[in-house]
Amino acid sequence: MKLFRFGPADHEHPGVLLPTGQRLDVTHFGEDYDESFFASNGPERLAHWLTAHAQHCPDVGPDVRFGPCVKRPSKIICVGLNYAKHAAETNAPTPAEPILFFKSTTALCGPNDNVVIPKRSEKTDWEVELAIIIGKKALYVELDEAMDYIAGYAVHNDYSERAFQLERGGQWVKGKSADTFAPLGPYLVTKDEVPNPNDLRLWLRLNDQQLQDSNTNDMIFNVPTLVSYISQFMTLLPGDVISTGTPAGVGMGLSPQRFLKPGDVVELGIEGLGEQRQQAVAFV
Amino acid sequence: MKLFRFGPADHEHPGVLLPTGQRLDVTHFGEDYDESFFASNGPERLAHWLTAHAQHCPDVGPDVRFGPCVKRPSKIICVGLNYAKHAAETNAPTPAEPILFFKSTTALCGPNDNVVIPKRSEKTDWEVELAIIIGKKALYVELDEAMDYIAGYAVHNDYSERAFQLERGGQWVKGKSADTFAPLGPYLVTKDEVPNPNDLRLWLRLNDQQLQDSNTNDMIFNVPTLVSYISQFMTLLPGDVISTGTPAGVGMGLSPQRFLKPGDVVELGIEGLGEQRQQAVAFV
Repeated sequence: MKLFRFGPADHEHPGVLLPTGQRLDVTHFGEDYDESFFASNGPERLAHWLTAHAQHCPDVGPDVRFGPCVKRPSKIICVGLNYAKHAAETNAPTPAEPILFFKSTTALCGPNDNVVIPKRSEKTDWEVELAIIIGKKALYVELDEAMDYIAGYAVHNDYSERAFQLERGGQWVKGKSADTFAPLGPYLVTKDEVPNPNDLRLWLRLNDQQLQDSNTNDMIFNVPTLVSYISQFMTLLPGDVISTGTPAGVGMGLSPQRFLKPGDVVELGIEGLGEQRQQAVAFV
Repeated sequence: MKLFRFGPADHEHPGVLLPTGQRLDVTHFGEDYDESFFASNGPERLAHWLTAHAQHCPDVGPDVRFGPCVKRPSKIICVGLNYAKHAAETNAPTPAEPILFFKSTTALCGPNDNVVIPKRSEKTDWEVELAIIIGKKALYVELDEAMDYIAGYAVHNDYSERAFQLERGGQWVKGKSADTFAPLGPYLVTKDEVPNPNDLRLWLRLNDQQLQDSNTNDMIFNVPTLVSYISQFMTLLPGDVISTGTPAGVGMGLSPQRFLKPGDVVELGIEGLGEQRQQAVAFV
């Protein structure tokens, strides 16, 4: 199943993309895609509800805005330097265990919303990443059970202000948390439709120039390893987002370095999960 | 006004401590102390409601459990090394600008709940801190307006697993986010009752031995500076928690170093904000 959320920011409604390509408004299901939805077997209940009600659901029009595919998770946990070539381009050693950092959930936005370059930013950078959406509460999860705790997957652009992240006194969260720095979606693709999350092509283009092009099979720590590992340090709640790191090709790694300017267009996607498109604008 | 939450974990009710010492159950006000409460002038509306309804509110019994004084904020932002002597005891330079890191909100617990030493932890450490509770949405706030964005203050013990934080591959959040690592309360004391948050004694005792004893006037970056600074990097939401850093006297800074063992008792407090008491237990 492919779940999406549509409508004005902070007032989104739930939708479902059918295999036929039809997009249904499932507002009448009565729930949004949030912690309590995932905690109570939401995707399964929604699929069951659709067998009886799909024919009565209105279509979602073509010009609608997409929101983030999950409503306000309790946290966004990101993994740093999880592709060897990306670690190399940032002059960092290959990590011996996953590097974790958080992003403020206020950074969430829709997959095609403008990315707002923060005030005083000169180094706003892109990072296409596979995001995992957690399906049930997870603490001290064993590796061989980790996949049971996943609801699905989505495209995430882990926007990063490199000066804020690296030149302003430590801890990366400072450069990861600006508004619009976490476009998530368009779809949460439930895990039954993703046979192998550890083998998905992912790519990013800036103004039609291909800058990132890799595969999740190049991740140093794969999907179940990350879920199990993170759950050793904190409780993961249903709906929580784990962003699994970005491959080589970010602006900081280019020579000369390149960062976003107003008017730039960033397009990105992951095989089977959909595509995003953001235009960079200045903060006003 | 002093706000508290009481009852079983995740099922707390709102309460108010009156200047007389009486503790009122204000469940009938119909709101909990969460984002929407603070976003809609909750403390002021509650005070007004009490003028008519206090006499009909039941008392809260003496043996009740206290919960965290705020219900699930969108984030907990912590400030690192914000007291010069604490920076020195951890062999870190005095920061040139505030160091920020996050704590998972799943770490929140009541002020007198047991602190659970995580699996495989050998270095669970304490940190008494003044917490700021945000009162309204804040982005790019000027220094001279920063105090307007504060709802009140609370005691926070920023528990930290030092090996997870410092020896497991970067970014402190890994050692800050275990369940029960963020006792918050007992009270959210509204700012009108705290004439100067930059001049409050704070202290911590381990098994009756005084280990931390300082004053918030020793902070390198004071309360309005922190609110204004953090709002340059992310949007603060009503109910969000900023933990302002700890003074010298943590276990990592002692010689020899000392960390929590099951049975240890940690007591801490801040002038005018109340006291906490946690007993350390092993994870089972």
